[in-house]
Amino acid sequence: MTAEWFDELEVGQHRPYGSYVFTLENIRAFAQKFDPQPFHLDEELGRASVYGGLCASGWHTAAAYMQCCARAVFAARDRLAAQGKDLPPLGPSPGFENLKWLKPVFPGDTVTFAGEVIAKRELNSRPDWGLLTIRNRGVNQHDEAVFEFTSKLLVGRRDGGH
Amino acid sequence: MTAEWFDELEVGQHRPYGSYVFTLENIRAFAQKFDPQPFHLDEELGRASVYGGLCASGWHTAAAYMQCCARAVFAARDRLAAQGKDLPPLGPSPGFENLKWLKPVFPGDTVTFAGEVIAKRELNSRPDWGLLTIRNRGVNQHDEAVFEFTSKLLVGRRDGGH
Repeated sequence: MTAEWFDELEVGQHRPYGSYVFTLENIRAFAQKFDPQPFHLDEELGRASVYGGLCASGWHTAAAYMQCCARAVFAARDRLAAQGKDLPPLGPSPGFENLKWLKPVFPGDTVTFAGEVIAKRELNSRPDWGLLTIRNRGVNQHDEAVFEFTSKLLVGRRDGGH
Repeated sequence: MTAEWFDELEVGQHRPYGSYVFTLENIRAFAQKFDPQPFHLDEELGRASVYGGLCASGWHTAAAYMQCCARAVFAARDRLAAQGKDLPPLGPSPGFENLKWLKPVFPGDTVTFAGEVIAKRELNSRPDWGLLTIRNRGVNQHDEAVFEFTSKLLVGRRDGGH
């Protein structure tokens, strides 16, 4: 999702998404619902695991990325709308590549997410959309990358490609 | 996560994970928390969107996969433990590749998840673990694939590689 039209986005552009604070409570709540592995729920079993401590489900980190991204993009869309700018439609994501959980995320960690536009491509078959490739990353408070993936996103073209 | 040791898993093996029922309520609850895009929250805005209807966040589908996988693997581990078998440790996933959201998931859809072992590789650097590659898929009640990704997983070797 973007606040800008395809035409306004440039390769190399940095997109800050903000931060998410992981707590024992939200790590356990997500894990209970979706990923009840013992090292996401129990501190002692976490310490005994390969992670060395209770840590967040990787899918929790992914959902936290989405929350930050959505919040940042909606805030930017609101600012642009207040300035009277017209906004692109919210386009679908066909999927992504190479998701990496680089380090465990522990209670108390703050993960700051950002994206970087690494490619853009016009679509002959769908002239009203362009395909954006974004490398997304999450970094903890020790400046260690914990999460990374490359997403594809369809973004509206301002003039419908004409 | 697996119930079997690396040594017992074979390329081509099918791993059924069971089903998840998407409802208006759970789609909206997930979206409100993690992915508040209008087409995940509002039926009218969903109909007006590229998806043609209110649909689930792709991250909700991913979390639903994890829920089904965890439930199936824990049930299998419980069965094996009840038979007196020793179980492999739960290993970490370094990440995955090529996640695809192939079709939107709508309220009322039942998505059935399964995995297939497509590769296994011993690790010289870590003789007590093997690297498993699994192609995971989610199929709706119309037998349409809606979700797919290829995961990597470290799985314990029964004899520590000796």
